[in-house]
Amino acid sequence: MDFSIPQQTQDFLGAVREFVEKELYPFERRDHARGFKALLPELARIREDVKKRGWWLPQISKEHGGLGLSLVEHGLLSAELGRTPLGHYCFNCQAPDAGNMEILIQFGTPEQQKTFLDPLLRGDIRSCFAMTEPEHAGSNPVWMSTTAVKDGDDYVINGHKWYTSSAEGASFTVVMAVTDPNQDPHFRASMILVPLDNPGYTLVRNIGVMGDAGEDWASHGEVRFENCRVPQSNLLGGEGMGFAIAQERLGPGRIHHCMRWIGICERSFEIMCAHAAKREVAPGVPLGTRQMVQQWIADSRAEINAARLMVLHAAWCIEQHGAKEAREEISLIKFTVANTMQRVVDRAVQCLGGYGVTDDAVFSHFYRHERPARIYDGPDEVHKQSVAKRILKRHGITIKSGANQ
Amino acid sequence: MDFSIPQQTQDFLGAVREFVEKELYPFERRDHARGFKALLPELARIREDVKKRGWWLPQISKEHGGLGLSLVEHGLLSAELGRTPLGHYCFNCQAPDAGNMEILIQFGTPEQQKTFLDPLLRGDIRSCFAMTEPEHAGSNPVWMSTTAVKDGDDYVINGHKWYTSSAEGASFTVVMAVTDPNQDPHFRASMILVPLDNPGYTLVRNIGVMGDAGEDWASHGEVRFENCRVPQSNLLGGEGMGFAIAQERLGPGRIHHCMRWIGICERSFEIMCAHAAKREVAPGVPLGTRQMVQQWIADSRAEINAARLMVLHAAWCIEQHGAKEAREEISLIKFTVANTMQRVVDRAVQCLGGYGVTDDAVFSHFYRHERPARIYDGPDEVHKQSVAKRILKRHGITIKSGANQ
Amino acid sequence: MDFSIPQQTQDFLGAVREFVEKELYPFERRDHARGFKALLPELARIREDVKKRGWWLPQISKEHGGLGLSLVEHGLLSAELGRTPLGHYCFNCQAPDAGNMEILIQFGTPEQQKTFLDPLLRGDIRSCFAMTEPEHAGSNPVWMSTTAVKDGDDYVINGHKWYTSSAEGASFTVVMAVTDPNQDPHFRASMILVPLDNPGYTLVRNIGVMGDAGEDWASHGEVRFENCRVPQSNLLGGEGMGFAIAQERLGPGRIHHCMRWIGICERSFEIMCAHAAKREVAPGVPLGTRQMVQQWIADSRAEINAARLMVLHAAWCIEQHGAKEAREEISLIKFTVANTMQRVVDRAVQCLGGYGVTDDAVFSHFYRHERPARIYDGPDEVHKQSVAKRILKRHGITIKSGANQ
Amino acid sequence: MDFSIPQQTQDFLGAVREFVEKELYPFERRDHARGFKALLPELARIREDVKKRGWWLPQISKEHGGLGLSLVEHGLLSAELGRTPLGHYCFNCQAPDAGNMEILIQFGTPEQQKTFLDPLLRGDIRSCFAMTEPEHAGSNPVWMSTTAVKDGDDYVINGHKWYTSSAEGASFTVVMAVTDPNQDPHFRASMILVPLDNPGYTLVRNIGVMGDAGEDWASHGEVRFENCRVPQSNLLGGEGMGFAIAQERLGPGRIHHCMRWIGICERSFEIMCAHAAKREVAPGVPLGTRQMVQQWIADSRAEINAARLMVLHAAWCIEQHGAKEAREEISLIKFTVANTMQRVVDRAVQCLGGYGVTDDAVFSHFYRHERPARIYDGPDEVHKQSVAKRILKRHGITIKSGANQ
Repeated sequence: MDFSIPQQTQDFLGAVREFVEKELYPFERRDHARGFKALLPELARIREDVKKRGWWLPQISKEHGGLGLSLVEHGLLSAELGRTPLGHYCFNCQAPDAGNMEILIQFGTPEQQKTFLDPLLRGDIRSCFAMTEPEHAGSNPVWMSTTAVKDGDDYVINGHKWYTSSAEGASFTVVMAVTDPNQDPHFRASMILVPLDNPGYTLVRNIGVMGDAGEDWASHGEVRFENCRVPQSNLLGGEGMGFAIAQERLGPGRIHHCMRWIGICERSFEIMCAHAAKREVAPGVPLGTRQMVQQWIADSRAEINAARLMVLHAAWCIEQHGAKEAREEISLIKFTVANTMQRVVDRAVQCLGGYGVTDDAVFSHFYRHERPARIYDGPDEVHKQSVAKRILKRHGITIKSGANQ
Repeated sequence: MDFSIPQQTQDFLGAVREFVEKELYPFERRDHARGFKALLPELARIREDVKKRGWWLPQISKEHGGLGLSLVEHGLLSAELGRTPLGHYCFNCQAPDAGNMEILIQFGTPEQQKTFLDPLLRGDIRSCFAMTEPEHAGSNPVWMSTTAVKDGDDYVINGHKWYTSSAEGASFTVVMAVTDPNQDPHFRASMILVPLDNPGYTLVRNIGVMGDAGEDWASHGEVRFENCRVPQSNLLGGEGMGFAIAQERLGPGRIHHCMRWIGICERSFEIMCAHAAKREVAPGVPLGTRQMVQQWIADSRAEINAARLMVLHAAWCIEQHGAKEAREEISLIKFTVANTMQRVVDRAVQCLGGYGVTDDAVFSHFYRHERPARIYDGPDEVHKQSVAKRILKRHGITIKSGANQ
Repeated sequence: MDFSIPQQTQDFLGAVREFVEKELYPFERRDHARGFKALLPELARIREDVKKRGWWLPQISKEHGGLGLSLVEHGLLSAELGRTPLGHYCFNCQAPDAGNMEILIQFGTPEQQKTFLDPLLRGDIRSCFAMTEPEHAGSNPVWMSTTAVKDGDDYVINGHKWYTSSAEGASFTVVMAVTDPNQDPHFRASMILVPLDNPGYTLVRNIGVMGDAGEDWASHGEVRFENCRVPQSNLLGGEGMGFAIAQERLGPGRIHHCMRWIGICERSFEIMCAHAAKREVAPGVPLGTRQMVQQWIADSRAEINAARLMVLHAAWCIEQHGAKEAREEISLIKFTVANTMQRVVDRAVQCLGGYGVTDDAVFSHFYRHERPARIYDGPDEVHKQSVAKRILKRHGITIKSGANQ
Repeated sequence: MDFSIPQQTQDFLGAVREFVEKELYPFERRDHARGFKALLPELARIREDVKKRGWWLPQISKEHGGLGLSLVEHGLLSAELGRTPLGHYCFNCQAPDAGNMEILIQFGTPEQQKTFLDPLLRGDIRSCFAMTEPEHAGSNPVWMSTTAVKDGDDYVINGHKWYTSSAEGASFTVVMAVTDPNQDPHFRASMILVPLDNPGYTLVRNIGVMGDAGEDWASHGEVRFENCRVPQSNLLGGEGMGFAIAQERLGPGRIHHCMRWIGICERSFEIMCAHAAKREVAPGVPLGTRQMVQQWIADSRAEINAARLMVLHAAWCIEQHGAKEAREEISLIKFTVANTMQRVVDRAVQCLGGYGVTDDAVFSHFYRHERPARIYDGPDEVHKQSVAKRILKRHGITIKSGANQ
């Protein structure tokens, strides 16, 4: 076993940390006050800077113009970028585009790649991913009502989706739609590429989430497809492969998310400790002299270290054996890190007191907009059940899969 | 021991419940979308309705035009009003006005009562309370920099406060200011009444808290006093009594808050259970069949029952022996109920999943705007320490009081 | 609402507290060192003393020679007796005899009462209760293999039971046995009285539980019934009523247990606080100056108060509306108080450090022998599920009862 | 980063696992029933077998006749041995001997090594370590009353110790005694080797701990030194070095303990899962179909993985940078793993229900005899404080060290 990180990687991470602190932290207050759209010109300038530094698309292979980082390396980077809400966006490795890039690289036809992938990689356009439906529990990913029916050379799509994140301002979406309702649930749906200037598509609204409807990339759309017609050549992968591709998309994606959350933990921890060292509870008596505060610090340090090692280990497992073999590890980190983050951020809020709940502190953003981490990409409960079933299977019992149990 | 609630009280609470559900729940979405100011005309109409029904000022003695409810009775009412964010406002028993009414009744001169209290009781004006300072830990209530210096017949006040809740639109504030820095810390400060059209007073901003700067009553102000001059007759109670009056203000106030939080718990619990009964995770399989959800329901029910009994018991203790004798009970409920609320609301969010984090669900409001409950009026940690010291004193050791230990 | 306890009751409780401290605490070390049997002569003397003081059988009606305390009053007493492991035994209100007395009073024929109940009330004999079977999950109380088959005027009983507590030295047992396997599960079993000098009955062993096999009353038997023949007149209540009587037995029994656990909490809390006040971590610096210790004290105080109020409230509900109407409250206290006790005892152990884990401290006994509290009489999980189903039923869904869900 | 374990190491661990399962698991019941002394002949035979297999003294360098495993390797082995209470004893790497071997190798004179170390390495004798005193809080390791006063060529030792584990049957002890009370607290005490046939030494008793006084190696002694005279050549290291050597002893020792606890976790987890797969709650319905059980399985798996990675990482840090540089990591694992173990064992107890608390299940042993893990070698609270101070120091504040803060 070797826990060391090569010096070259450490240098790279150090440079990114410095960049993030200097260039991106200042956005934190401005972001909140002015809204995301107002920041676009400045962000465009920063994205150019990132390109110049050779840091653009860190998660993408060199072949497709990226840095070609391994999953462990990108995980480490993701922890640096996650320290501030706009980190990933500036490096063009933000959700949901990063996931869409991955599946377009893996499953896209040359034509699809040219039309959809290439401008996405360049950062000229943005995309979104329409899967969850308000009418069905997101925890059961194979239950949906949106349909895509063949009509001539086209699919005609009808359905209602929400949490189509970053829909506002996006150029296209990947939509999950049932193409064959008679199949086994895991093979009913397909993924289809839909340009968003399609008249059959409507962005109903940006959903208000934890007090913010948000804007542009920083938003969650409710959308409708009404007789939305696209050519059948927009099918991604094969028919019925929707669920399988979605799973594929989620494996490494969860590493990205989890390491982003580690970044949030580290940032929160750092601010909490700095505050405990500086803030006085009485003249000459810093807050950090208080054992209850010391307990938050020690518990948080232990939990962050544990979470970080688990994610890096899961990334290493994916690298060694593939995402499928690492499903248990992936489920374990999904719920572990999301809960660790919630606890660490909450302690930081409490430690900073009145200041901790203001929008002057970045926690307010984390506290609100990262609460969904325990819900999206499979809620805690689904991952726990999934882990337990996998383990019990090794002990000889098979519990029916899916939501029916 | 008798845990029964008289039939008459039950009838009253039932009528209020019906009123709240019918008249106030509809505000929940509108409130968020439009902002508080836009609601003022409708709220004024509802407040008139409340007056007509004879429910106005439930916490105030009949002598001063209120309902004269006992602390236990008002607690029970507060749990009904707390089910929705605007409940207390509509009955004119909302913070911070309710606390100001109490201390004006107890400590105000006839002249002060005429000028400040009477219009407040009528609901013609609003008020605020300026105590916490950004420069000093709010957990140490005797440490402040704001001063009031005598000059002729006036006090000249200088200082910087925040969390002066509801400052926007208020007519006057009670300000805590050091009048004698040479006194023992608990006797340094005094309370002074300041009309807010005073040129020495500035509302710097409504602080962004958990994503909302808010408006009018629903806001938290940062304010400055710069050579703010008021007549010495505006002193409330005696000089040096600031801390003592603040304590007095907090005792029953914590019952109000805690029972309001119980209301929030009950509402969240109700929505969670209704959702578990109705939402399907697969066709024909309600979410409530899942043991992890059942666990949330059972744990929440147990914790809410426990919290409710503790608050009612503390209210009863105050009624029997006075707030001073019930300090331990008051501290215990402060941190117990705030934490119970956080857990219950969090489970409800998780149970509702994607919907639970939207602003369509009232949880989003509770999740964000009730997080400060563990901070204001003494953070958890201060109350725990205070309880422990009190208990250890009975075991023979005295731990130095105040923040210095 | 009235939380007061009548002065007369307070005086009684005070006298019992004094008695327990003076007469029973000294047994704690001796008990462990010498084993229960060696204590019997001294305990007999103390039981006589209790009779003389008029405190014998506090839970039994005056008609049957008891004190006739209400459930709330007996609960309060139980908290006093629970402070030490032998408290209930000395007052003849210990499990499992107390439960057997109850059902014999309610369901026993005059003949059965004369033979079994009367000597039990006098304290001349002891009894046990054989329900749980090692082969079946105790969490499913309607699943058992023991049978009682009619043969002439007799029942012939065959089966294997464990956790037949206090079997060693007992004169009779109540045994649950299936009398009609074709009935609905809840009506299959009956309760039958079996004198233990019956040749068809064997005490296989006292089960080693948490390091102690124990002796006599302080033991848990594994027993076998092999062609154990008793007259049909030994049937308690009607045939098929076994489950119903067991439920009846458990209602008030849970109040007794829960209040006993409150007694354990209070005792542990008291020792913890006394230690924190006295033990020094450095010369002149008591342990209680440490915030982490203060946190244990405050959290424990809050949790014990909450648990105590919940149990008293549940007892009051049973008094007002009967055990059946109070099932939700009873389930809630069962898991709440058992878990509160585990946390409080664990904190006390930690606070006392090396001393806390020795058998010199009474915690060691509580820590070990009260761990089963979360398992017997329905494990936490069963009670939580039961509460949730009951609540969800009020929201319109019925989840299949029994263990099959 | 590389999380892989070399094939050779995996093979070794697999062989040990098999040996432990086949040879040592059968002791678990016998151990409890018969007491440790009765097992000595059989254990002697097994120790011979271990020697023949070349597994003796895995933690000791080849130079001193051991296997020369690295700290990471020995950690992995320790997790295998920890699966059963007698594992380490059979490999002669059990506490407290392993720690004594370490310090004798590092600080012993050739003469001391010949007299004390060599027979210890051979397994011919056993030893103990007398540090903690009942009169002083063990959490403050520099506060003690035992003294060693020079008299001629001897030290004359007087003092009272407890938790001198394995004293019964040991041939010598290392005792911590104050040799210069005027020094700074960290330099007051020295370590002295005392053969236990010394007339000035008395084993007062084996302390009853969690229900067992135990015997021989499996016991915790209370001992007295009364004018106990040993030659000054029995001083280990230099005078005043007692605390420093104790620290040295604890670093790798905590890795051993923590990995042993991981072994306990894995064993408990395995039994819990096997039980959940096999035990039915109703005919044909295994316990493992229950989500509450699935939650225990998933949470335990996550927590054990996290704990295991943290310990291996800490071991790697010690290997890379020495124990002093890894102090933060060592403190973090000490409290993290001890608490993880307590939770996992507790869940396993609950999962197994009535069986889980019997002495037939190995949990009963773990539940009771591993509770002290959160207390010895520094209680949780001391390690948390120590971690926090170290972190806060990096943020610029120094909190006074020692117990005085």
